[in-house]
Amino acid sequence: MMPRESPYPLVAIEVARQLITAQLSPLATEMIDIRHPAALDRVLAEDIVAAAAIPPAPRSAVDGYALRAADGLAPRQVIGEITAGGAQLPALQPGQAARIMTGGLVPPGADAVVMVEQTLEADLTLTLQRAAPRAGEAIHTIGQDLAAGEVVLRRGDTLTYAAIGLLATIGCVQVLVARRPRVAVLATGDEVYEPDADPGAGGVRDSNRYALLAAARAAGAETISLGIARDDLAVQRAAIQDGLARADVLITSGGVSMGTRDLIKPLLAELGTVHFGRVAFKPGKPTMFATVELPAGRRLVFGLPGYPVSSLVSFEVFVRPALRRLQGDRTPERPLARVQLCAPIMPSADRPEYQRAVVSFADGQLVARNTGAQGSSRLLSLRDANALLIVPAGIQRRESGEMLDALLTAPVREDTA
Amino acid sequence: MMPRESPYPLVAIEVARQLITAQLSPLATEMIDIRHPAALDRVLAEDIVAAAAIPPAPRSAVDGYALRAADGLAPRQVIGEITAGGAQLPALQPGQAARIMTGGLVPPGADAVVMVEQTLEADLTLTLQRAAPRAGEAIHTIGQDLAAGEVVLRRGDTLTYAAIGLLATIGCVQVLVARRPRVAVLATGDEVYEPDADPGAGGVRDSNRYALLAAARAAGAETISLGIARDDLAVQRAAIQDGLARADVLITSGGVSMGTRDLIKPLLAELGTVHFGRVAFKPGKPTMFATVELPAGRRLVFGLPGYPVSSLVSFEVFVRPALRRLQGDRTPERPLARVQLCAPIMPSADRPEYQRAVVSFADGQLVARNTGAQGSSRLLSLRDANALLIVPAGIQRRESGEMLDALLTAPVREDTA
Repeated sequence: MMPRESPYPLVAIEVARQLITAQLSPLATEMIDIRHPAALDRVLAEDIVAAAAIPPAPRSAVDGYALRAADGLAPRQVIGEITAGGAQLPALQPGQAARIMTGGLVPPGADAVVMVEQTLEADLTLTLQRAAPRAGEAIHTIGQDLAAGEVVLRRGDTLTYAAIGLLATIGCVQVLVARRPRVAVLATGDEVYEPDADPGAGGVRDSNRYALLAAARAAGAETISLGIARDDLAVQRAAIQDGLARADVLITSGGVSMGTRDLIKPLLAELGTVHFGRVAFKPGKPTMFATVELPAGRRLVFGLPGYPVSSLVSFEVFVRPALRRLQGDRTPERPLARVQLCAPIMPSADRPEYQRAVVSFADGQLVARNTGAQGSSRLLSLRDANALLIVPAGIQRRESGEMLDALLTAPVREDTA
Repeated sequence: MMPRESPYPLVAIEVARQLITAQLSPLATEMIDIRHPAALDRVLAEDIVAAAAIPPAPRSAVDGYALRAADGLAPRQVIGEITAGGAQLPALQPGQAARIMTGGLVPPGADAVVMVEQTLEADLTLTLQRAAPRAGEAIHTIGQDLAAGEVVLRRGDTLTYAAIGLLATIGCVQVLVARRPRVAVLATGDEVYEPDADPGAGGVRDSNRYALLAAARAAGAETISLGIARDDLAVQRAAIQDGLARADVLITSGGVSMGTRDLIKPLLAELGTVHFGRVAFKPGKPTMFATVELPAGRRLVFGLPGYPVSSLVSFEVFVRPALRRLQGDRTPERPLARVQLCAPIMPSADRPEYQRAVVSFADGQLVARNTGAQGSSRLLSLRDANALLIVPAGIQRRESGEMLDALLTAPVREDTA
């Protein structure tokens, strides 16, 4: 017999997100070498402070001549050459100058540098082809780039290439970062086949597991594929326990609806605590979230629906922010923007809907159109989407020109349609 | 003696970019398995067409009962149960119904499915708790998600997680992608030290090489670090030749200015063809681009300036688009957007400048402010930037409210300042 009503109340999207966030504990931290390829995109777990000023001594900002501004336009005697990284020269006396390369240490006595393009040098005599220099000109002063004690990066910052450059600049090669979450993904269902198998008329190829593994990696996780568990309580229990033993986060695909073979929620209720079992949300109403306490620590379990679009949209709305928070990211959410509809759309009558959309710039405004038929199984609707348009429940068409919020999941471009 | 004038004419930014693009030949292709973690973010080198319709047969879109709409509201006899992936049932006769799970094959004779929540079943008799069903209701028709012969993905598309899901859905597990470009990075200069060394008052730690290696990886490249070459013609020639032998693209850092130790341009003129040696561009005027023809193929060489900001901005403007084009990316450029200044900025008098900026949404408009002092050595100006604001040369301050173009290098968010 099929159940007529879900035992789980529908919770609002924001409530579901809060229930998840309340269960998150930060992952352990580890040291990483910023020179290692794996440092890119990790999340800092400490504030980073510059120990010393940069530059630590006055340097030339250009290729040219170090000299004394007070000598005005008088010819100077060239007494030597200072290369970047080369030795310091003795103090310049009045009437003297020294060739200096970009980055070279400005010698004592010199208080300006004149670019080589504005000079002539013959027989070690320098003449200026320009107005008299000003004191301080073209000199890169102590601490101009970074002051000693300045906070260079903060806990929660992501290691972009610029951040890696900054850390190298101050000699901070070992930094504390959050451990990457380990995410295991399990597909369920007798109808689910490996992508290289023939699923026949009644089967489907397992797109969810491979898409979810890729999405979890893109969110910074290490991933474990748990394969496909058929619709058998013992088989699914064993697969779930395997995932819980090996991962911080378990994502299941399918088996969360109302059918006689939908075993995931009863199993998680048996193994741990189900915090919500349904969300007033389209696509992805059957989405479930549970925790299981193991001696090794708390495990998070996201039971995502089997429909491909429901699965990936639920990942974006519920799982990805959790994975970023586990890593300590200071901005764990996708950007949210106010956008103007450039084509009408139909809301869902009973639930807020995250419609797959293309958001673009047009005349300095952000405009949005959805990506066509929004069926939960139609993965094509996600292919070209760079946003999820948040459409409140309603029975009236939303017209062109109306404003809505959108989660931006990929770069926004100029409208070329 | 220092040269007074560069032998290389200043070329305009767009000319420089065209000179680069003209030298690009597509990289070879290779097969990749979409189930492998390395498939994420690769660029397709073929169009992908769905061989068969999905779904291939009518299926139930919900958990409920398959029945004949023509029977109206009359009670039905329940003759069996159809699971997703389970066997097909024999044809339904008038007055019959079958339990059916989401994804289950709709049996012959049935033309509608009613959700379990809208039914009652007792003693194998089904009654509907709602209006009479419509033919076609809750049935997922043949080809509704994908038609046979439909183009699913195109050459030049990036393998996002949604694209990986689509490929799995149609059973296309081996796909042709562009080989990742191999990028070697060489730092040059007597003043340059490894990041974990003490550079003293006159030295600098090598931030550029590590930042450029990370930036190249973020652009999809495999990377090779060539270390630091001191300012010696033979040493730099050997290091460059090593890089050319091992990589498709060589990036050098430093040694491209007017100083007596700036050896990169003469070396590349000796080894290959210098297509431009200077760009009317700030920061990064000394940027150079050359090609070297080897038996193994054409090598691209980007000689970037030694100043950290010049180096990374030149990477964004000249190198990154080339790396994406080498991979066949259909959208190799960062998004360009029209933005409104929310604080005044000073242009550079003689050259267009790419100022590091924060672009955000405010009241549905894109607004921009630069990230403070724009010195070429001040890497902090890049830390918080998500855009490069393109500021034409000029001597008048650009005021709040003026519109400029910006390259968006990272996600744009709501203004929280």
